[in-house]
Amino acid sequence: MGYTKTDELAINTIRVLAADATAHANSGHPGAPMGMAPVAHVLYSKFMKFNPKNPKWLNRDRFVLSNGHGCMLQYALLHLYGYALSIDDLKAFRHVDSITPGHPESHDTPGIEVTTGPLGQGISNAVGLAIAQAHTAAIYNKPGFDLVNNYTYCFLGDGCLMEGVSGEASSLAGHLQLGNLIAIYDDNHISIDGDTNQAFTEDVKKRYESYGWHVLEVTDGDSDLDSIEKAIKEAQAVKDKPTIIKLKTIIGFGSKNQGTHGVHGSPLKADDIKQLKEKWGFNPEQSFAVPQEVYDLTGKVSAAGAAAEQEWNKLFASYGEKHKAEYEDLSRRLTGKLPEGWEKSLPVYTPADSAVASRKLSEIVLQKIHSVIPELVGGSADLTGSNLTRWKDAVDFQPPSTGLGDYTGRYIRYGVREHGMGAILNGLAAYGTIIPYGGTFLNFVSYAAGAVRLSALSQQRVIWVATHDSIGLGEDGPTHQPIETLAHFRALPNCMVWRPADGNETSAAYYVALTSQHTPSILALSRQNLPQLESSTIERAAKGGYVLHEVEGADITLVSTGSEVCICIDAVKELEKKGVKARVVSIPCFEVFDAQSKDYRLSVLPDGIPSLSVEVMSTMGWERYTHEQFGLNRFGASGAYLDVYKKFEFTPEGIAKRAQATIDFWKDVPNIRSPLNRAFQQLI
Amino acid sequence: MGYTKTDELAINTIRVLAADATAHANSGHPGAPMGMAPVAHVLYSKFMKFNPKNPKWLNRDRFVLSNGHGCMLQYALLHLYGYALSIDDLKAFRHVDSITPGHPESHDTPGIEVTTGPLGQGISNAVGLAIAQAHTAAIYNKPGFDLVNNYTYCFLGDGCLMEGVSGEASSLAGHLQLGNLIAIYDDNHISIDGDTNQAFTEDVKKRYESYGWHVLEVTDGDSDLDSIEKAIKEAQAVKDKPTIIKLKTIIGFGSKNQGTHGVHGSPLKADDIKQLKEKWGFNPEQSFAVPQEVYDLTGKVSAAGAAAEQEWNKLFASYGEKHKAEYEDLSRRLTGKLPEGWEKSLPVYTPADSAVASRKLSEIVLQKIHSVIPELVGGSADLTGSNLTRWKDAVDFQPPSTGLGDYTGRYIRYGVREHGMGAILNGLAAYGTIIPYGGTFLNFVSYAAGAVRLSALSQQRVIWVATHDSIGLGEDGPTHQPIETLAHFRALPNCMVWRPADGNETSAAYYVALTSQHTPSILALSRQNLPQLESSTIERAAKGGYVLHEVEGADITLVSTGSEVCICIDAVKELEKKGVKARVVSIPCFEVFDAQSKDYRLSVLPDGIPSLSVEVMSTMGWERYTHEQFGLNRFGASGAYLDVYKKFEFTPEGIAKRAQATIDFWKDVPNIRSPLNRAFQQLI
Repeated sequence: MGYTKTDELAINTIRVLAADATAHANSGHPGAPMGMAPVAHVLYSKFMKFNPKNPKWLNRDRFVLSNGHGCMLQYALLHLYGYALSIDDLKAFRHVDSITPGHPESHDTPGIEVTTGPLGQGISNAVGLAIAQAHTAAIYNKPGFDLVNNYTYCFLGDGCLMEGVSGEASSLAGHLQLGNLIAIYDDNHISIDGDTNQAFTEDVKKRYESYGWHVLEVTDGDSDLDSIEKAIKEAQAVKDKPTIIKLKTIIGFGSKNQGTHGVHGSPLKADDIKQLKEKWGFNPEQSFAVPQEVYDLTGKVSAAGAAAEQEWNKLFASYGEKHKAEYEDLSRRLTGKLPEGWEKSLPVYTPADSAVASRKLSEIVLQKIHSVIPELVGGSADLTGSNLTRWKDAVDFQPPSTGLGDYTGRYIRYGVREHGMGAILNGLAAYGTIIPYGGTFLNFVSYAAGAVRLSALSQQRVIWVATHDSIGLGEDGPTHQPIETLAHFRALPNCMVWRPADGNETSAAYYVALTSQHTPSILALSRQNLPQLESSTIERAAKGGYVLHEVEGADITLVSTGSEVCICIDAVKELEKKGVKARVVSIPCFEVFDAQSKDYRLSVLPDGIPSLSVEVMSTMGWERYTHEQFGLNRFGASGAYLDVYKKFEFTPEGIAKRAQATIDFWKDVPNIRSPLNRAFQQLI
Repeated sequence: MGYTKTDELAINTIRVLAADATAHANSGHPGAPMGMAPVAHVLYSKFMKFNPKNPKWLNRDRFVLSNGHGCMLQYALLHLYGYALSIDDLKAFRHVDSITPGHPESHDTPGIEVTTGPLGQGISNAVGLAIAQAHTAAIYNKPGFDLVNNYTYCFLGDGCLMEGVSGEASSLAGHLQLGNLIAIYDDNHISIDGDTNQAFTEDVKKRYESYGWHVLEVTDGDSDLDSIEKAIKEAQAVKDKPTIIKLKTIIGFGSKNQGTHGVHGSPLKADDIKQLKEKWGFNPEQSFAVPQEVYDLTGKVSAAGAAAEQEWNKLFASYGEKHKAEYEDLSRRLTGKLPEGWEKSLPVYTPADSAVASRKLSEIVLQKIHSVIPELVGGSADLTGSNLTRWKDAVDFQPPSTGLGDYTGRYIRYGVREHGMGAILNGLAAYGTIIPYGGTFLNFVSYAAGAVRLSALSQQRVIWVATHDSIGLGEDGPTHQPIETLAHFRALPNCMVWRPADGNETSAAYYVALTSQHTPSILALSRQNLPQLESSTIERAAKGGYVLHEVEGADITLVSTGSEVCICIDAVKELEKKGVKARVVSIPCFEVFDAQSKDYRLSVLPDGIPSLSVEVMSTMGWERYTHEQFGLNRFGASGAYLDVYKKFEFTPEGIAKRAQATIDFWKDVPNIRSPLNRAFQQLI
């Protein structure tokens, strides 16, 4: 309340910066920043709690721009409020190697919480951030120490609301009663195809009420700052529901083409920018100009934020005196490092141990480590009993009123919402106090491909427990049997795909996944039992690939992963009968193996011996490691898993036959070169 | 109305068959079939219009089991109502090579309309089937000839409703006012994790009202057949809204564990089945037994259906007399064949033609062929102006009341709903009178991965116009630049991924996509302009790969796709300066190239010459064709596209440098073998 001309000027400054930067880049989206400048100003100047000098302060409010194409709004705000983002950075908008790329990227730009742009992701990340806040508060807050009480604010547009992923996450947010989540929907009636009446005529308010959200509306988002402020205040006061504020705005407010899709994704023309500036009292000859009184206003807000952090730091210090263990634990979590010695809890196996499905081996890992890694927060997309993702006696993360758990709970029931889960995992990881994992069948990680891609791009430590990883799932059949899935995610940069072959490899997969702070992991795990292998160890498997069975004067190297490794071992015996010597290599993770020294890798896949890969899915990608490939470049079949394996000849005999063919085919080639030898280095 | 003991017996027969088959397979989901048997019986015996002897009759009602894990329900119905599915087929449930796999597959089993199981897909396919009906009716129905008036019925469960894809498709269905769509929601309160109160507490009725659906409720779906019938009748009468009937049922009705998740995904125990049979008057010693009076009942229904088809055939014949052109056109469409001579409309280019972006070349194709292929129905997920998917003067498919188009319209505004669009495309294709295509950025085809996979598995002729196909999209940056996407879909069986390099290749891509009746296609198209190449032709490109530039005594083969082909051509000149001779191969489509004879393929990628692939994304998969690979195994960058290409050295100089490295690396290898030579054939 009590807004002045200076507020108006600050709002118009954001609009002008957005117009200038998109015009300068000759690319970008001025419409959303210009339309949302008023609500952004109210939010940042009156509500947001942050210290631009320490963008990682734990108790800061989180701001997510789900309509990430409007990132000039966010960049303008970051600049005005004193983050390390200069006018020159704004001028470099959408230029190669700038910190102001075409969509906001959290790993590049201080003050960006999550990477957005792909629609629907940001609001779903925000649900994750809000869950993380509620959980962290439930764990650490103590009487007199309201240590963690931040809000998560999210702007989103029509596009985000049309995407199914936002529906999944929003439904769960309502169920979870996340009162700390406040979404502001830019209801501007325009998307790229034009008026939303062409495809999006649902009643958004009613839909969000059906999800259990508190729904508010502000009918004049262009100038009624008081109503905006009042709505956000009301949203803050609602403690047991997330809130969405439907804010009517005019896209590209101020432009001659305001309210049309012409301002959505293209820069304004020069004369349009000129009239804007004249209308609002800016010098039309100047670009990227910020009036001093605007800096004065934003500077005061930032100074207050810095002071708030100071206060909080004092609070945290005195918390440390009263609650030493919690203080140390939380401090440690914020470094991203695991507790000293945690890895001693990883289970270790010998060949004498019984055969166990790797999904079960994963459950054993979780059972052993959950108590030593308190930041581990699990869940499943409604496949708990199949994914085996829930340790015994886990408490569910639930609103206490449900009687099913409470916010200290570390197990999330995601429902059948893989994509929503993937995006929520990103939000959970981005908060800074949690290492999240989520379970589904490997085949359905594909439903979440959009979110997994952003885990990788934004470098989030997110773990997928992806069970039923092949035709080995058997009866459920081709609709559920992954063929292309490993190739897909192996081709995704900065994503570790693990397919462990036994207990030690499963422990290794968890070891590397948990200690890789900036890389997501997908653990592909079997439904069927796998024997404990001779000579597998956590240390060896943690290299991503290693020799499992060595033999002097080998005729061939069999290279495999997961459930096919033990069949390769049996194939060795089959080959021995015919006087053929085979060595066996296990490569549970390409990404990690690729990071080893070339000497090491060549010791695993040496020159001079032909090699054959064996994996019951697409052979794509295996040519990088082996000379010949035995895989499944077709869909699977429904039946008992041994019948399915037999149908496709993934048996010791089927492998031996192809090993012999490989040896025959390569026998006349002198000096067989390992495929690891390449003519030049790839760009990475 | 007027249900008798025989109806009860028919319902219990379905239940017993489901219990028997899952027990016999020792695998499967008895719960949903047992719970939904009553509504299935009412629907099939009182409403469904079908002839089991001709499962492809155009005007049949479509039935979709979106909760596909309940497929024993569908198999039991197909058997009882006389489709070519025997008791032996039921006994072979979930056995290798049966026509009764673990989830329903349309290409295998007569009477299955669409392949379901992955949750949320079926209801979204149903939206596509309903759009197709409305469109086909609008085109062909004439006064006195209500030729096409079928309904689409869809069963779905809690899981389908939690998935975002169903929300996307349902919102669009409401907007499109699809009165011919009737969904029945099995509200049994149980999912795999247990009671839905753990994760799914939204108000489903309210949500569907918000989408613009007519919502009904039946509170006793276990025995109140009259209310079920009344609800379906009411739904049929509502002409301007799709209807969802919320049907309360008890999962696994009749089992000792009914109403719990224990009956969801595991067979009933022997004693449980025994008490079922005893309770319902079946002989507990018999399995797979169907009382004759049930066959009598279902046989009458089927006979009536066969008669109805006869009537319809007469109607269609007399339609043919009055409306010859429409009759012939519709008859042709039903064969899946395109109109004679359509391909003459494909644009042809010479090197003298100007450089054009392949997304624009795609638009030119659509502009030229839409009038000769009337079954082509396009659309975009809110990127029409970017995908260039809409021909000039296209009519939008819209409810006439919107004033934005009508149901004869052939352009669908999907909204920002890629996954929903993908699933709807499958439904459109499955209907039998339409060839659908949909546009989005290549990167966001990944959002629809679940649906694309089912296009491939169920062999639907679906075309993705996937523009902005690489880092060449420039400023939008890494969030929008595909890296892993081509590898992903190339690894998917039965999916053609095309990346044309110029106009003739774009025409070739459309030619093959449109004439491949059982394979979906993804056309990866550039944002940036591409020159028309020397020696490209439609015929040559239609082979999937061909020699674009031949030279005697070549030192190297450069192999490329799409926008990098012309850079390779420039690299040839760069190499010439250094006395190096390079040939150039274009492989616009792996899948199609792989299908050529080995002789042909070896003429393209011969022995004796080292080869280098050049493509600005993941190198994964290229090792199958080339000795060395130049690609991008990292995320891209935001900037003007030429700057981005330069940053990553995708320039004539950058390619030449790597070509030289390739030549040097392979110069000491005698008898260089083309990677096409393999030790053994893959299973396909």
